[in-house]
Parts: sequence; C-alpha cells; structure tokens
Amino acid sequence: MKVKLVSYNPDGERVVAIAAKISRSRKGWDYHENMSQEEIETWIRDSILHGYWSVLEHSVYTFSIEGISRVASHQLVRHRIASYTQTSHRFAKPVDEYYRPVSPPSARGKIEQAYIDLYKEYYTLLQQGVPEEDARYLLPNGVNTNLVVTMNARELYNFFGLRICSRAQWEIRAVAWLMLDEVRKVHPRLFRYAGPNCILHENFVRPEDDPVTLEQEKQFTSARCIEGVPREGIWKCMKNSRNILEKLK
Amino acid sequence: MKVKLVSYNPDGERVVAIAAKISRSRKGWDYHENMSQEEIETWIRDSILHGYWSVLEHSVYTFSIEGISRVASHQLVRHRIASYTQTSHRFAKPVDEYYRPVSPPSARGKIEQAYIDLYKEYYTLLQQGVPEEDARYLLPNGVNTNLVVTMNARELYNFFGLRICSRAQWEIRAVAWLMLDEVRKVHPRLFRYAGPNCILHENFVRPEDDPVTLEQEKQFTSARCIEGVPREGIWKCMKNSRNILEKLK
Amino acid sequence: MKVKLVSYNPDGERVVAIAAKISRSRKGWDYHENMSQEEIETWIRDSILHGYWSVLEHSVYTFSIEGISRVASHQLVRHRIASYTQTSHRFAKPVDEYYRPVSPPSARGKIEQAYIDLYKEYYTLLQQGVPEEDARYLLPNGVNTNLVVTMNARELYNFFGLRICSRAQWEIRAVAWLMLDEVRKVHPRLFRYAGPNCILHENFVRPEDDPVTLEQEKQFTSARCIEGVPREGIWKCMKNSRNILEKLK
Amino acid sequence: MKVKLVSYNPDGERVVAIAAKISRSRKGWDYHENMSQEEIETWIRDSILHGYWSVLEHSVYTFSIEGISRVASHQLVRHRIASYTQTSHRFAKPVDEYYRPVSPPSARGKIEQAYIDLYKEYYTLLQQGVPEEDARYLLPNGVNTNLVVTMNARELYNFFGLRICSRAQWEIRAVAWLMLDEVRKVHPRLFRYAGPNCILHENFVRPEDDPVTLEQEKQFTSARCIEGVPREGIWKCMKNSRNILEKLK
Repeated sequence: MKVKLVSYNPDGERVVAIAAKISRSRKGWDYHENMSQEEIETWIRDSILHGYWSVLEHSVYTFSIEGISRVASHQLVRHRIASYTQTSHRFAKPVDEYYRPVSPPSARGKIEQAYIDLYKEYYTLLQQGVPEEDARYLLPNGVNTNLVVTMNARELYNFFGLRICSRAQWEIRAVAWLMLDEVRKVHPRLFRYAGPNCILHENFVRPEDDPVTLEQEKQFTSARCIEGVPREGIWKCMKNSRNILEKLK
Repeated sequence: MKVKLVSYNPDGERVVAIAAKISRSRKGWDYHENMSQEEIETWIRDSILHGYWSVLEHSVYTFSIEGISRVASHQLVRHRIASYTQTSHRFAKPVDEYYRPVSPPSARGKIEQAYIDLYKEYYTLLQQGVPEEDARYLLPNGVNTNLVVTMNARELYNFFGLRICSRAQWEIRAVAWLMLDEVRKVHPRLFRYAGPNCILHENFVRPEDDPVTLEQEKQFTSARCIEGVPREGIWKCMKNSRNILEKLK
Repeated sequence: MKVKLVSYNPDGERVVAIAAKISRSRKGWDYHENMSQEEIETWIRDSILHGYWSVLEHSVYTFSIEGISRVASHQLVRHRIASYTQTSHRFAKPVDEYYRPVSPPSARGKIEQAYIDLYKEYYTLLQQGVPEEDARYLLPNGVNTNLVVTMNARELYNFFGLRICSRAQWEIRAVAWLMLDEVRKVHPRLFRYAGPNCILHENFVRPEDDPVTLEQEKQFTSARCIEGVPREGIWKCMKNSRNILEKLK
Repeated sequence: MKVKLVSYNPDGERVVAIAAKISRSRKGWDYHENMSQEEIETWIRDSILHGYWSVLEHSVYTFSIEGISRVASHQLVRHRIASYTQTSHRFAKPVDEYYRPVSPPSARGKIEQAYIDLYKEYYTLLQQGVPEEDARYLLPNGVNTNLVVTMNARELYNFFGLRICSRAQWEIRAVAWLMLDEVRKVHPRLFRYAGPNCILHENFVRPEDDPVTLEQEKQFTSARCIEGVPREGIWKCMKNSRNILEKLK
C-alpha cells in the first residue's frame, strides 16, 4: 500500500482563513491577502471548533493510492463528495508482476497459495479466449488496484471521522491514517482537530477553550462514542486503530 | 440478476410538471395542482428537450438490485448523485445457497468449476479462524451482492446515457436496461426521451419538433456518437446493446 | 409564508428500515417486505442513534414553500444536497397583488411604507422600458418568492440541525420549523430524533438507551452546544427558537 | 465587478493528464509523473472530446468574485457542485462606501437615484433600532456582495456551458466570461474546448479530428443549439453574449 499526496495548494490554509474572514467583512480579497500567520491559525481554529465547516472546502488535496485491494477501493468510492480515477481492469490486465493481491494480516500464510492457484485459473480463462473484462470476474476481491483521489479538507474531516475509527475495516483504516499523515505534514493547522468521530463529537460538546486532539490525551466528557465505546475506553480504542500501520509493515 | 422498482411517487410526473410551471408562474402549488394530463405531458417534454433538467430531480425512484457481481456494484456506486445501501460481506457471509457468483456469458461452462474450487478455499479460511471480513478477500469479483439504490429522474437520464450505451460493461448495462424498463412502465412520459448518450446528444442538436426516441428509428443528424460510432451504425449499436438481456436469459 | 409537503412516499419509513436491514442480511427485498411495525421502528431508531445516516436517504420529500423573501431563499438554496425550482423574476413579474414583500417582525410598521414607495419606483422603471430582469434589481431583498424543494430524510436532519437552531436567521428558521412539522405528521418515527444541532450532538455522546428528543426535556450531558450556549441554557434556547412561529402569526 | 483567480495548482493540467492515463495503465503515479508536454495535451484533449469528464475534477480553482449583485449571487450558488463563502449582510452592514448596488446597463441613469433614496430609508430603519439582519430586507436585490468560489474544471465546463450562453442573465454571464478568461490564462490546454453549450454539444456529434473552439469560427453541423438558435445564427449569438463585457466598461 502506498499513499502519496500528489497535488494541493501550499497556500491552502491561508485561502481557508481568508474565506472565513470574508464572510464577516465588507472588504475584498486583496485587503485580506497578507493575513498574518497568527490570524490564519485563529480563523482556522474558530471555524472548526464552531462547526463552520464550509470554508474548509476551499483547500483541496489529490492523493495517489496504490496497491490497495478492490475490497478497500469499493468502500473508498462510497464517499461521494470526492473525485476518483481508478485503474480499469477492463483495459489494464493485472498479469505477471502486476498481480499483487492484498493479504490481510489475519490470513498471512494462509491465503497466498490460494491467490496463486486462482491466478492460474484466471490466466487459463484468458488463454481460452475469455475477454479480460470477463476473466476478471474470477480475480479475488483482494486483487490490487490504483486510484487517484481528490477530496477537500471538509470531506477529509468527515472521511477521517468515519475511517480512522477502529470500527472501520482495517485496510481502508490504514489508507485513512496514511492520508491523514500526508495532509498534516503540509497543513498542520488545518488538520489539527482531525480524528475519528469520537474526537469530532467530543469537541462539539466540550468547553471551547480546551479542545481534544489526537496528540494530547485528555479526559473525555462524552459518556460514549457514537459506536458505543464507553468514555474510559476511547483512547485505548484509538491506539488500537492506528496499530494497523504496524501490522502492515 | 433481479431489478425491481420498490418505491416511487406515482404522482411524480405531475410533480415535475408543476415544478416546471411554477418557475414561470406567480401562482402557488394549489393553483396548479389539478393540471391536466395534456399539460403535464407538454411541460415534461419541453423541459427535457430544452435541457431544463433540474425539474426532473423532483421525482425519485428506489430500486432493489439483487444478485449482481461486485464487478458491477463497484461501477454502480461510482454514480455519486444517488443513494446506496449494500449488503455487507463483513457482516453477512455469502455461504451455502447465498454463494451465487455471476458467470459472464463469454465464460459460461469455463468459470463455474473455478468458482466452486474457490468457495472451498474460502470456506477453509473461515474454518481456520480467519474472520469473515478477511476471508472474503479470496472471494471472486464475480461474487453476488444486493443493493438498494435511490436515484432521481435527472440522474437516471445521466445514468442511462452512460450505461445503456453498448460500450458500457455488459453487466451494468443489463442492470441499466432493466431499470429503464421499470421506470418506463410507471412514468412513460418522464422517460420517453431516455436512452444512451447518442440519443440524448442527437436531441440537443436536432429540430425540436422531431425528437428521437428509442422506440422510433429515425435518421441521425449527428456525424458520430461521442464514443465514435458513425451515424449509420448507431441504431445497430443500440440493438446490440440491449441484446445482453437475451444473452442473460 | 406557506409550507406544504406536496410529495413523498407514504411507505418511506418501511423503505428506510428494509434498506438498513438488507445491509446486514443475505436475503432480498421480497423477504423483508412485510416487516412488522415494531421492527421498522427498531431499525430506524438504531440507524439514527448509531449515526448510520445513509439509509435515511431512501425516503424523499418535496415541499412547496411560498411567500418567503429572497433573503430566505438565498440561504435555503445554499443547502446543496437538495433539489430546487424557484419562481423566476426574469419571467414572472411580481406586480400588483403578487408584490407581497416580507416584513420582519422587528420592522413591522416601519418598513411597509418604504416597500410601497419602492414598488412605485420599480413600476416606473418598467414603464420607462427597463426590462423586467433589470428592473427587479430595485426590488427589495424582502420581495416574496415561491420554491419547490426536494430533500431526503438525511439532508433534512442536517438542515433542521442548522436551521432550527435559534442562531439561524428568523425567516429560514420559521421555514425549517414548518417543514419539520410537516414531515413529523407523516413519518413520526423517522423524524423523532430531529432537532437543532444541540440535540443531534447530545445524542452522539449520551447513553444510547436514553436519547433526547424535542418532546421531552432532559438534562443535557454536553457542557455546551456547538454555538456556545451552556448546558443549562439549551432548553430555553430551543423554546425561543420556535417562538418565531408565534411572532409571525 | 471584479473576478480574480486566487488559488489553483499550477500543475493541474499534468495532474488531470496523469489521472487519465492511470485509468488505462498498470503503473503508478511515479512512473507517469514526468509526462511530456505533448502527452499532457493529448490526454487532456482525448478526455474532453470523448466525454471522459471525471478526470477534469482533479484540477480545482478558487475565485474571489467581488461587487456583484445579490441577483447574480443567488443564481451563482445554485450550482451545487462547488464551494461558496459569501459576505454576510447579517454581520457586515453595507453602509457608507460599501453600499455600491449594481446598475444594469439598461437602467443606467434611471435607477441610481432610487438606489440613493432607498439607502436613506434603510439607514433610517437602522437608526430606529431595526437590527441589521432585518433592515437589509429593504436593500435592493442589486446590492453588492462578495464571494469566494471553488469549482473543479469539470464543473467549470458545465458552468460555462450554461452561463456563457447569451440566454443567461447578463450579470452572471459577465462573471462567467471573466472566470473563463482567468482559467484560460493559466491552463489553456484544459479550457481550450470550454464554451457555451452550443459548442459543447457540437463537439459531441462532430468528427473528432475537427473540434470547434471559441477561437476559431467553423460551420456548425448541429441544426440548432439547445436554446433553439438555428445553426447559422450561433456564432453571432456567441459574439453578442461576450459583448456584455464591453457594456460594463
């Protein structure tokens, strides 16, 4: 699995902050353009902590996601407020070194031989003249695929909220953690409050001057997360969630 | 494969027609509510032939689509202006009589044994303690799934334009033809001008008083369809497209 | 202001519940079709309280909204996951009895004469040959307009969350309360947990077996709502919000 | 009216071209990253002329649009596949030099005095203690507003198709032409085939090796445009459309 941020506007945090300010100002873009770093941070923070999500849509990110299974890609494309381009198995046969199906950690050592056997049967179908687009019906759900994905910062918050959660399926969870790592590297202020839904929801109901982030373990005020994990289990649950990255190494 | 229209508003054509009229009228809903059948037909026709698509969004359809492969479902959910609920293989194991992978017509007699062998290996993984959500990585892409799908009439026009086209993959093409048959039964006036993109595009550029429909073969004025089929081949191409329904019988 | 539910599927609650169940079941629609009323209620409740919002998209509602100002309509159409048709002032002149600009309660007795003066100037422009689509630049923002609006139940929850809140502008708030009244009449189980964001967020973090609804005042566990109202002020805030309906009588 | 492109990825054309190629290739992003300028042009051109629009979503543009009327902004925000932030008249009073309502060319010299009178009445309301959010009901529809707008290249094609057309209302038409000028400056290959719907539709049905662009007047094969303008009137119609920019000088 490889997740790489391939396109974004380095100035995205400024763009979001100026947009937020323009909603309250009579002056135009040029006046606000040289906003200070401190002001950028304040406008971003206030927008997120008050649920003024729409301004986050003005910063957009494109990722190349490679070597994930079609199990994961099928879940990924269910997020409709995003743009996708996927390698087509109708036109690009996954033969030879391009056949690298994903082995779930729980099935390591148990699934690989079956993947090889299956490949032989798939290849036989091709040799019998079955068209590629039909032979692929036999390929396993774990077969590898590549995508180009574009999401804005608001949708990323929503995506992370659902997919970084430990209840998310492990593979898309790993993709989500890697995407989060990528965007935090370039826009730390914009993604400071990103995390699973337990964190987002906690910040909706908690004193504003003391928000929770993934970085700093604080006592939750929520009685439970939306998935039913009780208050005292939430931080452990988050650590378990990220553990998937270790298992995949 | 089973495609069934399970929810819609019988009065959807009237709703669309009244909405179209309200955009030009100062009077409210009650005044227009008893619009005559002739007037309904006229407002619908004019809206479609002049590209006033937005009013078609007020009539919405829910389908149950059963027994299609995950090849097809992965394509289907790429249509983002729609709502989907899909049977989860994380929670609902496709074992025993529920394992009915789809055989492409071109692979009939060639793929079934491989599907059976694969099932055995999948079952062995389950018995070895591999969780369902991971064992399914070995299931073939052809494995069957069920979905509930909601689309409005405008999106259906767009969906049919792309997926009824003979260039669409055969399985989603079959789904699309069956969906079209379902909605034409209940709302023939609203879907009279639906068809592959060649028909939609032809009606954009052709004299308004002589529109093309799937029912009535007329000489095209377009030099080619957007997929490159030249004018004289278009009708044959459409027949080939629908032929998939015969092959699946 | 007049808000009327003009189209929906009476069976929408059943459709939502069946969709929720199908996501966990290997059986098809026909098997689940005769779901009992109790089961419908349980699946709807569980979906909402666990944030499984997507199934709510399968029930869709069309409203006729008449006699609101363009101040309110401009805010309304900012909700992008919805369908709109609006009376066009390019084509339908709001003259004579059709000119009924909205008077804010706070400006009653102070704004009406200005509205009348303005109308005269607008009419003069028309008489001077200024086209309707340009003369309307002089019409007040309060000028009345009609819309047809279609939203699904998920988007309605989101819309109510934002617009029923006492911080929302009073006119769109009144529209939102009237829309909620309409849908609760026909689908009480589906909209039982609808309310301003304070209620939605409270139910994300509160014990699952004791949800809050608009109907039953319970102690909040949230320290504050997302708009900053502290716990003890929330119920009063909600009552103030709905008070707008009295003021408009 | 001021339209300025304030954020985009300079490498957007490359991103679109690579995405298009990845859909047909088994290799990943790194392999394609150094695509030649010629190849970029070819992939973009082929994507557009074959209606493979989705890849255009990976290049995204943010505009500052200032000094347009609320007549125009109300139309603009009807385009739902886009992101908007608008100066709020609830929080930012358009008084003093910030009150600059838009005068339609057809009403020049006829509407300005009325605008001034109206302002006085608006100001009186404020002095009488009517809150800003209510006093603005009296402001004219022509009152000026500022927005930040983000759209991807696919949506821009759609937006231009509808709004550059001479049938579009003159003010949003002017906005659209200025937006097109902005993006063509930075990404001429990506927006070469952009234009009103007559051009888009013509290219759907015309020989692929001879596409129409705004730059080069060619005989249309379409009998009419979708708005009903006959073949021989189309080029003149487009010139009339752009003329609005002269009238606004």
